[in-house]
Formats: sequence, structure tokens, C-alpha cells
Amino acid sequence: MKTYNILNRNAIDEIEKIVGKKNIITESEGFFNYNHDEFALDEIKHNPEIVVKPSTTEEVSDVMKIASREKFPVVARGGATGLVGGCVPSFGGIVISTERMNRIIEIDEANLMVTLQSGSTLRDFYSSIKRKKLFFPPHPGEESATIGGVISTNAGGTRAIKYGTIRNFTRYVEAVLADGSIITSGGKVIKDSTGYSLLHLLIGSEGTLGIITKAVLSVLPEPEDMITLIIPYKDIKTCLTGVPSILKSSVRPLAIEFIDKKVIEIAQKYTGKHWPSMQGDIFLLIILEGNKEEIEKHCEIIADICLNQGAIDVFIADSQQKQDDILYVRSMVYEALKFETIEILDVSLPPDQMATHISSVDNISAKYNVWLPTYGHAGDGNLHTHIMKITPGGDKITDWKNIFMEIRNEIIFDGIQKGGKISGEHGIGLIKKQYLEMCLGKTSIEIMKKIKQAFDPLYILNPGKIFDPD
Amino acid sequence: MKTYNILNRNAIDEIEKIVGKKNIITESEGFFNYNHDEFALDEIKHNPEIVVKPSTTEEVSDVMKIASREKFPVVARGGATGLVGGCVPSFGGIVISTERMNRIIEIDEANLMVTLQSGSTLRDFYSSIKRKKLFFPPHPGEESATIGGVISTNAGGTRAIKYGTIRNFTRYVEAVLADGSIITSGGKVIKDSTGYSLLHLLIGSEGTLGIITKAVLSVLPEPEDMITLIIPYKDIKTCLTGVPSILKSSVRPLAIEFIDKKVIEIAQKYTGKHWPSMQGDIFLLIILEGNKEEIEKHCEIIADICLNQGAIDVFIADSQQKQDDILYVRSMVYEALKFETIEILDVSLPPDQMATHISSVDNISAKYNVWLPTYGHAGDGNLHTHIMKITPGGDKITDWKNIFMEIRNEIIFDGIQKGGKISGEHGIGLIKKQYLEMCLGKTSIEIMKKIKQAFDPLYILNPGKIFDPD
Repeated sequence: MKTYNILNRNAIDEIEKIVGKKNIITESEGFFNYNHDEFALDEIKHNPEIVVKPSTTEEVSDVMKIASREKFPVVARGGATGLVGGCVPSFGGIVISTERMNRIIEIDEANLMVTLQSGSTLRDFYSSIKRKKLFFPPHPGEESATIGGVISTNAGGTRAIKYGTIRNFTRYVEAVLADGSIITSGGKVIKDSTGYSLLHLLIGSEGTLGIITKAVLSVLPEPEDMITLIIPYKDIKTCLTGVPSILKSSVRPLAIEFIDKKVIEIAQKYTGKHWPSMQGDIFLLIILEGNKEEIEKHCEIIADICLNQGAIDVFIADSQQKQDDILYVRSMVYEALKFETIEILDVSLPPDQMATHISSVDNISAKYNVWLPTYGHAGDGNLHTHIMKITPGGDKITDWKNIFMEIRNEIIFDGIQKGGKISGEHGIGLIKKQYLEMCLGKTSIEIMKKIKQAFDPLYILNPGKIFDPD
Repeated sequence: MKTYNILNRNAIDEIEKIVGKKNIITESEGFFNYNHDEFALDEIKHNPEIVVKPSTTEEVSDVMKIASREKFPVVARGGATGLVGGCVPSFGGIVISTERMNRIIEIDEANLMVTLQSGSTLRDFYSSIKRKKLFFPPHPGEESATIGGVISTNAGGTRAIKYGTIRNFTRYVEAVLADGSIITSGGKVIKDSTGYSLLHLLIGSEGTLGIITKAVLSVLPEPEDMITLIIPYKDIKTCLTGVPSILKSSVRPLAIEFIDKKVIEIAQKYTGKHWPSMQGDIFLLIILEGNKEEIEKHCEIIADICLNQGAIDVFIADSQQKQDDILYVRSMVYEALKFETIEILDVSLPPDQMATHISSVDNISAKYNVWLPTYGHAGDGNLHTHIMKITPGGDKITDWKNIFMEIRNEIIFDGIQKGGKISGEHGIGLIKKQYLEMCLGKTSIEIMKKIKQAFDPLYILNPGKIFDPD
């Protein structure tokens, strides 16, 4: 186990000089907003010793020079919308919050690339490019997430079928390393085979290798039109059976989600927004984009496939408002279930293993009498199972702490056994470390630890995340 | 500089036991096929001490165990279609040829993924999936390239605009490390945020971190139809000016290439195949895919854009034969120019910098009176400049060795200055090492060397490639 030094008055004074007095927090009453993320359990909360809010890469670099000189642990924090404790300062030390590093530096319309500071939120990013009629396909849910955060977890979300996850859109990052040095990887280029891809190594590294301070993301021209289909089915098996036919058709949807009615009812109530159908037990949500005529044609093709494979009906939301409502209800599912949720998993499976994995989850639900609502990205095999504190009938479970870990283990083991990965988009963070070796093998983890060592020999960057130091 | 041991009789006997006598070559007359790649200059040729042709991952692993025990250098060799000396055994030692590891293990139609041994050629891969009506968008040129090779260089090619390079399609690799241990990274999953992506680190690492033995690639349903447009322009400037409008339109082509008439004339003569137009000085080559009706519509949109922006005409090749001929002429440009080519570069630029970079190349051509035909991937900024041994007028240059390095430096420096990278798809190999620090910065290279150290502490895997050992 590594040990770290406690921040002393001198170091705090030095840091204050770098960012200014009003951009640090040193009193514990200010730490509440910086000691947790969206993971539900209080056990992981941990206060930092100082919160620092730099506004430039150079300020981040100067803070890291002090941290490495003094051996202080440092955790970068973006929107803190993560679900695995990734930005929690588990060893105290310094939280570098990127909240002031929120500048959208350039929208390069000629190259279809946007340069931004890592603390820019998805919300600001989406709205700034919308004004230029540009489009960023990935939509990893909560829009208060920051660019640095979504790159650090390789976030995916609902709209990853056609164009892929954040990884596919990230062209360049600038990052501050543990010793304060600044590296860049990639550029405003689409093809790059120039040395090892530090860019792709940093993507998904959860702030353990470097603090991402700037990025260039590719964008696309805004599609002429977009349409959302809601397709009810009588049961999950019928619903998922149809998905491969969609994927093998001539239509490539932006998103193919499935979600059960019980969950939608709760999210509808929570959001006050309308969902177009309450038939059946489960829905496919499909988003199509393109030009008007094409979409109409594609809509017909998809409707035919689904109706031939047991869909009860096909509802089309074509107005912007209706589609926004649907995406909002879907995006707020997590929020709506949050109060009774212990944890939300994100097992990523070979797409054809989804149905049998969900059967296993149903069996686990019955065995423990715990509600385990499961929904997710039907097109890419990435599932979200909520482990709830209530029974399928809605009764509170008081002794959930006794069974939580067993349930979690059973679901995750089943996913791994079916060729799946323990995280499709949330990352490992603090809370999935124990499954990593089972999922990846000992040799791979040894290599990862050596890579960590290469970037951060003192082990001061986001310690205790992904894996423990030896 | 690292030193290595020379293979001794005992080690050769051991290796022979692993793969069988008929699967090794130890006599120098057999080395001719294994001492070079497609890079034109003889200077880089180097014989191995033994060529080994394993058929399984385990055999590769067993050979690596001997190599690491004895400190023999090892170079993996696929189709040897590389252009930067990447598979040349510059330090002698062992060449592991993957020519017998050519099994297409599984075509998984439900998950749209194909599992293959790394020695499978692109040709076999394309034809095996075609029978199942599946499609692999990237087309990095020469189809005798192997899957291991195209992953190791993150190859791109002509059809990377819509769906990206090999990186975007690689879901999983199995690799043998320097010490013989076998790791896997990724899986039959589309989303993966489970630890550092060794998968994406291995992609493009040119055989210096591990020997890729197996891979899973994503494929797509075969498009209903495909069409190729040949669009002549009077000059390069007019030609490239139109490209951003295409990229910002509602149509997303599979490929947008530009190529000059002089080059096409040579390639046409070389291949004996027909090119649809000889108007103007330069052509755009655009490939569209989708269903029949859509393509027709898209064709009109593209034709309108191009004609509005100065195109002389628009030729449509719709039959399979005509399209195959065009792709063949384009793919054979390198072969057609090869005899008089010293080197072919692959600078990757921000797309809006292409035209000014080509101006620079024209100036360099005039300054040295050397023909520098340049063509490439107009949609993604990746350019191929041939440094020729002849003048623009076609005269032989006898003293080309005196000016070659200066020309090369000027072109590459101009690319870097314009925000470009020195390799978009060929890799660094043996011959671009001297530009790496200028392009990436010292700190990044130090990190890369530490990563190399983490994977291969004895520095036996493909030594002398990408960078030199310290």
C-alpha cells in the first residue's frame, strides 16, 4: 500500500498563489460537493484536503509539480456524474476541479472539429455546435458531464450504434502528467499511425495516467431530419430476437435501446413527460437520422422487420418536442430509480448473449426476491441492471446490505462467463476493481500496472482507482 | 545500443522441435523473401538468422520463450506489404512469419464479427465474408496484406471516410508478449471501458509490443448497392476546394480520393484497365454505398455540389466491373510508379491544410527538379507523395541520392508545421524515426519508451523500429 503526505500550510500557500485565493477550498464545509460522485453508497465518500479550481493547463501543471514534489495524491474532477466512484478523493489530498476550464476554444467548421477545455460540459458543447448546424452523435446521458470525464471513461450512451463511442470521435488530447509535464497526442487529423497511440491509451484511463486538459472532437453535419420509433413487445425475448435483423438490414440506426414498461412508468412519472405507448411489457427505442425521404423509407423497413418479428405496434415520434421528451424520459431513468438503487451495472456483452444474460438476471431476481430492472443498448450489447433496495413487488428490503454483494457477483460473473466485459461505459473506478483480474487475466493487469508506473511512478494520480498499487 | 545473441545450434534445434523441420528456414538462400518489405531502397535489407513458420499461438509463445531466454531479436512478418521497413529483421535473429496462421476461425453472423488468425490475408478475409453478404469497409490497398499487419500499422486506405480505419473495426486481439506470455484484450463486445485499452495500444504498435496472433473484427451487412464517381477538375486547387462542401452535405461517402491524371495514365497503362475520363488535370474519386434509390439521390447531390464548384464533368461507374477496374487502377498506382519511386510518404494533415501543403510540394518539386506526384485521401487529409528518381519531364535523375533526404525533410517538415502527423497509415518503422521527436515531442517519446520497457524489458521484439533503444 502506498502512503502519501498530508498537505501542509506551505504547499497550500503555493497552490493559492497559482490559482488565486477564491479558487481554492480548504474548509471541510466546502468539501461536500467534492467528496462523492453518483455512486449511491455513502461508504465511498471521502473528503479531499483541498479543492483547486485552475483555469488553464499551465495552472494544472504547476499544481502537479507541487503534488509530485510533495507526494500528495491528486484526483481530477469534472461533472462528477460518474457511477463508479472514479473522481472520489479516496486518499484525501488535492481535488483538481475542472469547472473553470470550460472554454469551447474553437469550432472549426472546415475540418469539422471542435477544440475545448476538458471542463466544458456536454450541454455547452451540444448547444454551441447546434448553432453551427453541427452534430455530435454520442449521448452518454447526463449532460452536465464534462468532456474530460467522458473521454476518461470512454463513455458511450444511447447513440453509439452507427458511429461508435467517444473514442471514435476523439482526435486529440492534451494532458498534464503526474510530474507536471504536459503532453499532447493526436491532432486535427483523422488518420494517425505515428508511434504508440497515447491518445487511445488515455481514453478510458479514468484520470490515473494524466489529467486531460484539452481535447479535439470530431463532429458531423447536422442530419436533415431525425425520427424516434417506440416499438412495444409482449416480452423481452421477442423484443431482443428482432434486433439482429435490424442490424443486418440496409438501415443503420443511430440508437437501438430496449427498456421495460415498469421502468418507463416510473421515469414518466418522475419527469412528467409523455411516452407514446403503454402496450406490451417492453419497448424498443430506435433513432433514425438522415434526410427526410430516406428516413421515411428506413422507418418502413424497420417497422416491417419489427412487426414481422412480433412487435405489437410501431409508434413514430417525428416532432422535435416528442423526440426530446422520449430521450429525456430515457435519460432520466437513472435519476427516477436512483432513490431505491444501490448500484447500476453496465456489463457489456456479445450482442447475441443479451437475452440469456437477462434470463440469468431474472433468475437472480427471483432467487433473492430483489427487483433488478434491466434495460440498455440493445444494438451494442451494453446492459444496465439496477440492483434495487426493493422487491419486484415494490416492498422495501431492509437487510439489502447482506445480499447486495452476492447479487452483484452473480450478475457480473454471469456476464464474464458469457464473454462480456464488466464495464461498457462507466469504467472500473473504485468499486469494480475486484472483478478486473477475472475479466482480463493476471498478465494484462501486470502490464497495466507497469504502464501506470511509466506515467506516474509515485502513484499520485487518482490512486486506488482501476486497481490498487502493489 | 542493445546487443543481442546469435542463434546457436541448440536453440535452432529447439525451435525446429516446436514447428517442425519443414517450417523453418536456416539457409541464406531462403532468406531473400524475408529480408525486406515494399520500401524501395536496398539499404534497409537485412537477413534473419532463421525464419520460423508457426501455425498456432502456442507455437509463437514457445518460440518467444526461447528468444527471451537467449536474448534473440524477433520480428513478426505478415504479408510484408509495408512501406517503412517495419518487418525487416534489422538485427538478424528470428523472423516469425505468420503465413501458416491463416485460418478464418469463425464468421459470427449474429454478432457481425469475424475471428481470424493474424496471418489471414485481406484477400481471404474479404472473399470469405462476401460469401455471407457481409462487408468490411476499410481497404488499405494491397490485399496480400495480413490482418496482423494492418492492425499493427492501424492501416486506413481509401474507404475510411464514413467508418474510419482498422482501429474502429478491431474488437479484440490476442498477442504473444516478449516473454512468451499470451494476453488478450477486448472481446466480442462493442463497448468496453474495462481498464486501460491494451487493445488500442497494440493497434499501431508495429509489432514492437507483442506479436498479434488472433483478432476479432467487426463487419457490416453488405450494402445493397455501391457506385463510384470519377469527377475531373482543371486543377488541384479547384478540386480540393469542393471537398469540405461534400463533407458538410447530407451525404457521407465511403471514400473521397483525389489523384492526378498523369499518375492515372501510368497506372492505366500498367494495369491495362480503363479509367472513365481523361479530361482536366485531376480527378476526385468518390464511392457511395447504400440502397439503390438512396444512392441515386446521393449521386445527384454530390454531382450538384461538384459541378457548382468547378468540376468539368461527373462520370458514374455503376457496374461492378467498371468499379472494380477503377479501384484496381487506384490500388495499383503504387505498383505502377514503384520502379521509379524512392519512397512514398503518407503525411496526415488537417483536411483544410491539404491544398497549401500540396503547393509546398509543388515548390519543392520545382526547386529540385524532381517529380513528386501527390494523391491521396481527400476526405481525411492523408496524402501520398512519391519521391521519384525522375524529373517532372520524365528524365532520369542519376544523382538522386544527393538530394533525396533534403526533399523528404522539406516535405515532412512542411506537413508537421501545418499541424500534420508524419504517418497517417504506414507507420514509422525503420525509416521515419528521425522525425518522431519533432512531431510528438520529447516527453511523449519518453513515455512510449517506458511503455516499450513495460512490455518488452529485453527489447527483443522488432528492435530498432519506431524509435531506437536508449
